[in-house]
Amino acid sequence: MSRTRIHNLSISLDGFATGEPQSLEAPFGHAGQRLHEWMFRTRTWAQHMGTGDGAAPSGSVGLDDAFAERHGTGFGAEIMGANKFGPPGWQDDPAWEGWWGPNPPFHTPTFVLTHRPRPPLEKEGGTTFHFLDVSPAEALATAREAAAGADVRIGGGPTVVRDFLSAGLVDHMHLVQVPVVLGRGVRVWDGLEALEDAYEIEAVSSPSGVTHLTFTRRDGA
Amino acid sequence: MSRTRIHNLSISLDGFATGEPQSLEAPFGHAGQRLHEWMFRTRTWAQHMGTGDGAAPSGSVGLDDAFAERHGTGFGAEIMGANKFGPPGWQDDPAWEGWWGPNPPFHTPTFVLTHRPRPPLEKEGGTTFHFLDVSPAEALATAREAAAGADVRIGGGPTVVRDFLSAGLVDHMHLVQVPVVLGRGVRVWDGLEALEDAYEIEAVSSPSGVTHLTFTRRDGA
Ligand SMILES: NC(=O)c1ccc[n+]([C@@H]2O[C@H](COP(=O)([O-])OP(=O)(O)OC[C@H]3O[C@@H](n4cnc5c(N)ncnc54)[C@H](OP(=O)(O)O)[C@@H]3O)[C@@H](O)[C@H]2O)c1
Ligand SMILES: NC(=O)c1ccc[n+]([C@@H]2O[C@H](COP(=O)([O-])OP(=O)(O)OC[C@H]3O[C@@H](n4cnc5c(N)ncnc54)[C@H](OP(=O)(O)O)[C@@H]3O)[C@@H](O)[C@H]2O)c1
Repeated sequence: MSRTRIHNLSISLDGFATGEPQSLEAPFGHAGQRLHEWMFRTRTWAQHMGTGDGAAPSGSVGLDDAFAERHGTGFGAEIMGANKFGPPGWQDDPAWEGWWGPNPPFHTPTFVLTHRPRPPLEKEGGTTFHFLDVSPAEALATAREAAAGADVRIGGGPTVVRDFLSAGLVDHMHLVQVPVVLGRGVRVWDGLEALEDAYEIEAVSSPSGVTHLTFTRRDGA
Repeated sequence: MSRTRIHNLSISLDGFATGEPQSLEAPFGHAGQRLHEWMFRTRTWAQHMGTGDGAAPSGSVGLDDAFAERHGTGFGAEIMGANKFGPPGWQDDPAWEGWWGPNPPFHTPTFVLTHRPRPPLEKEGGTTFHFLDVSPAEALATAREAAAGADVRIGGGPTVVRDFLSAGLVDHMHLVQVPVVLGRGVRVWDGLEALEDAYEIEAVSSPSGVTHLTFTRRDGA
């Protein structure tokens, strides 16, 4: 059964998954890289960036790495929001092809939700970006078909995550709470009162200082 | 050196330390007792409520209890907000003497911050309520003098906690994050951007499902 999953979504103590303002120079605004430092220290990240090739592989293989790794296994499609695909205004730039260079790290069909769709964009390594102006449920149906039985990742940002949670479309969510107070940005929790009714929630703190929160849908989907 | 400390302040995943609306029947509003169930299961609480007397003491003695216990040790005074002392409108009721009956659990001078002060109120067991309409720094100076070298507890609610944190008056804070999403109420984080600059933050998850967050002031106060 194909599951819909969220992985490695990093939030501050006060629940922000990005700072502000988002821009080409600072995709996470005033948060900088602070939400993701835990991930940069993992072996999964070192391999992802190619720094583990040839020489001895670097990066930790503990709790943070065990969680980080699952971002990459079992997926046949990703869905992301317009603000993850590019900085404000990318829709006005026909040459914008995403942050990730010629070989993006998705390696599957990747569906970008935007009110200003454009034709599909095929990149190296199996990633093709498709631009959709549809509801979360319709986007998931399309992505699920493209995933051909594999899982669908909701890649963020927080607005899209919230919308999919509100629509009851998420089976499994992994958040990483980082010990900083951002104060402003886009909060993942807004509009999700009583989320615990639908999910079994587990918290495990890591020696690195972050806390991993996993949400498993109670109906066992 | 007398320290200013916060203990056992329970918050939801989205940072609310109380639900809404606060009332005589529901002091925590729609949060009910959910923020404090972790505490009710501890031995410290059983003793506090007298249920451990005579018969075998009940309640867990693990991580949650180790944290809970510190709420009661080393204090010579407490400061609390008007909304912790009573439900909305208590200021209009001359007979209101707090939630806690004849022998409140403070056993020290206890300073209630309110814009409508009244004369001091002496209760059994060493608790005297003093009503102050002064700044956080002035309240702390007064409480510190009353504490005669012992520590001062900031007892909450979240508005008062935020004000004391903003004024840089807190040495040590212990929050307990409970796996519920309240969605509304009074949030502890608002206005505290970059709190991590001033505090060393440690997170430890408990088998009970809550996560204990401790904040130790970096200047070592
Ligand atoms: N903390 C993490 O781990 C993490 C993970 C991923 C991303 N991020 C960060 O999060 C930020 C982006 O998050 P965000 O919440 O601002 O935005 P987002 O969720 O990436 O995108 C939201 C936007 O997508 C479009 N959209 C969403 N649903 C749609 C629908 N059903 N139909 C058509 N368009 C739809 C709308 O844009 P338009 O109206 O403009 O089309 C909407 O404003 C970025 O800074 C990114 O780097 C963080
Ligand atoms: N989650 C927990 O562990 C925990 C712990 C403690 C309390 N609580 C709950 O938190 C709630 C209360 O929190 P809250 O944030 O609503 O309110 P609060 O912090 O208890 O009290 C705030 C009020 O105190 C008065 N006040 C504060 N500073 C003052 C000053 N410097 N001078 C004069 N008056 C001042 C003002 O009331 P006036 O203007 O009306 O005088 C202000 O509105 C209650 O539901 C309580 O049960 C939860």
